[in-house]
Amino acid sequence: MATPVRSGLPRAVRNPEFPLPSAPGATQEEIRRQNLGAVLRHVHVHGATSRAELTSRLGLNRSTIGALAADLAATGLVTEETPTTARRAGRPSLVVSPRSDRVYAHALSIEGDRLRAALIGLGGRILDLREVSRPGGMSAFDAVGPLGGLVRDMDSAVAADALFVGGAVAVADTTRDRDGKIRIGGADDALRTALEAEFAPGLGFVAGDLADIAGLAEHLRGAAAGINDLVYLHGDLGISAGIIIGGRLVVGHRGHSGKVGHMVVNPGGLPCGCGSRGCWETEIGDAALLRHAGREPGERGGILEVLDAAASGERSARAALQHVADWLGFGVANLVNVVNPDTVVFGGSLRRVYAAGADAVRRRLDEIVLPASREHVQLRAAALGRNAALIGAAELAFDQLLADPLNAGAAG
Amino acid sequence: MATPVRSGLPRAVRNPEFPLPSAPGATQEEIRRQNLGAVLRHVHVHGATSRAELTSRLGLNRSTIGALAADLAATGLVTEETPTTARRAGRPSLVVSPRSDRVYAHALSIEGDRLRAALIGLGGRILDLREVSRPGGMSAFDAVGPLGGLVRDMDSAVAADALFVGGAVAVADTTRDRDGKIRIGGADDALRTALEAEFAPGLGFVAGDLADIAGLAEHLRGAAAGINDLVYLHGDLGISAGIIIGGRLVVGHRGHSGKVGHMVVNPGGLPCGCGSRGCWETEIGDAALLRHAGREPGERGGILEVLDAAASGERSARAALQHVADWLGFGVANLVNVVNPDTVVFGGSLRRVYAAGADAVRRRLDEIVLPASREHVQLRAAALGRNAALIGAAELAFDQLLADPLNAGAAG
Repeated sequence: MATPVRSGLPRAVRNPEFPLPSAPGATQEEIRRQNLGAVLRHVHVHGATSRAELTSRLGLNRSTIGALAADLAATGLVTEETPTTARRAGRPSLVVSPRSDRVYAHALSIEGDRLRAALIGLGGRILDLREVSRPGGMSAFDAVGPLGGLVRDMDSAVAADALFVGGAVAVADTTRDRDGKIRIGGADDALRTALEAEFAPGLGFVAGDLADIAGLAEHLRGAAAGINDLVYLHGDLGISAGIIIGGRLVVGHRGHSGKVGHMVVNPGGLPCGCGSRGCWETEIGDAALLRHAGREPGERGGILEVLDAAASGERSARAALQHVADWLGFGVANLVNVVNPDTVVFGGSLRRVYAAGADAVRRRLDEIVLPASREHVQLRAAALGRNAALIGAAELAFDQLLADPLNAGAAG
Repeated sequence: MATPVRSGLPRAVRNPEFPLPSAPGATQEEIRRQNLGAVLRHVHVHGATSRAELTSRLGLNRSTIGALAADLAATGLVTEETPTTARRAGRPSLVVSPRSDRVYAHALSIEGDRLRAALIGLGGRILDLREVSRPGGMSAFDAVGPLGGLVRDMDSAVAADALFVGGAVAVADTTRDRDGKIRIGGADDALRTALEAEFAPGLGFVAGDLADIAGLAEHLRGAAAGINDLVYLHGDLGISAGIIIGGRLVVGHRGHSGKVGHMVVNPGGLPCGCGSRGCWETEIGDAALLRHAGREPGERGGILEVLDAAASGERSARAALQHVADWLGFGVANLVNVVNPDTVVFGGSLRRVYAAGADAVRRRLDEIVLPASREHVQLRAAALGRNAALIGAAELAFDQLLADPLNAGAAG
């Protein structure tokens, strides 16, 4: 049975640690469904877990956990096995593991200069991954065809009894379309509709902003795992943010939050592609680093070359890094004053810029951020690298299965 | 029975329209308690409501609503009366109203230049209100004593059978203490402890940031009623924001979100009291308007005088208003790009600045905000005036009663 198509990002990132709340007057069947979801979500996020540990973690009793795990195993969503090394006397508790090999989602990303598609198994394991370059000027709409090709290639190798649960796409924002307009892809319903058409009607998938989705992945499985108040900053051709506060994505009224690359930080600065002037992107984007280092614009490898040159002492490269890191710290400081995160995670191309220029970033925070917010905030490089968006997209695709494990998915 | 002391703001502003979710395995008693809360919350927010309308609004059946309303009436939390004009044939549905006269909270505010205290009845009605000025240099801690005096005066006139449910205080942020340090009062536990001591141990109250609390009031009962994604901007001696996204306050890691007055908007601008330079406050605070209009700093009535002079065409006053409104729009535009609100509400002293300079504010938004966020955002003057912080504080104080109506409050 195919899952219904959903649009946009869920507002709540559910806490995987506890059974979900139910409405008043929930039936036994509803409660059972929620508890099945809680068990499946736990092993999906934390990996193989013994029945004994599930019992204590989820606050349900032993026989309930046993019955739930057996039901999930019978449906082929988990395995239950005797641990190879029993550490205590008595009968060892069965270990429950997600069937990463059998239960999978499509995870896609439309990035600044490439298109990526992966099959990701329950538990977040990447089973297959393909990518093609995205030529300059190719709109997000034009990307639908090539992505479909990548997905069909991968699907042709999937076992007949595999369980497909749906798909999701992470779209880099502020992509420029053929008409010259900057579009915000992730929240653009026309794009989602086009993707739906390509992947056949009735196939469930979600479309969202790439920084939101990569931030979600870092929150669930990466540099900010266990942290509920974070700003994830993503550098690609532009700069955007995924903001998670109180464990929930701050998506905004129409899903357009986090367009931090278009905060004006330098009134009277350079013109930006958005039509404004002095946007943060114009000071910290890849193009700014290349320009200040005296390099040609547009080279992808150019960023790494400049950072390497800065590390080996080249004067212009060092000055360029200082300039970009200083402005990076400036904008981060403003964001910290606005949202008071516990952690700021630097991802995409900003991961390396931060790693190389962390001192300059911190200096700006010391200068600008109010002490009450400064003293607790942590700065971290992203942990999931270039796969964050795909891993996050898979989380969205798995969401429906985890909410109702016995009634989602379609045989592959 | 006194309510326990709570610290900080609740992360979730509950949606008053629906019964609260319950945990799996909720008992009948828990479900009943939640449904009692849903009925009481509805009449608290929306005022007198017939049983028939409660039935359709809350999705519970008629006999359940009847039993819940009768229980609430028996406890003295609501009244049930036959409507004076029956509009249809048949027995008219009883009208359920909150007992604003009997059930009340203490609502306090520590503002830039004054201290205010009110008794606020269920349903948000102000029953009594006192204020004294706050001398320059008086710390938030020093304010505890005078506030206690105001509260005792008001309490002495309360009827013996009144039901007191607790209190809350809204603290303007970035108040400067005797040691010269800027403190963030609302999230400062030492301040809350001092207030707890003054108001006697065992008395329940909450402390929070004034802009968060005033924003909550505008969200529940004011200019943004029914709107779930908003930025409330508050001008007092400083500038701060209450950010509500998806119906929830974005409070941040330690409750320090919304310190928007200390976003740096003008690198190389004027020094700010926080130690940084070019903060938004230095361009749009009351002091900036007075300075640009050639007035003496520090006069409270001075703002209104300048706005009046601008309205009657005085050149320097008009230029000052233009300057401040232009920078106001600049910062708002950045915030709209970051959080994509449906509505921005201008409160405190910014209410009048916005009303007088709306064109300049809008021009900046047109210039800076990405079209996808610009086309839907609404700008509004605050509706609750100077009472917003008190009304919002009362909402926090009523929260526990609304969660468990039959087990909160103490006879006055």
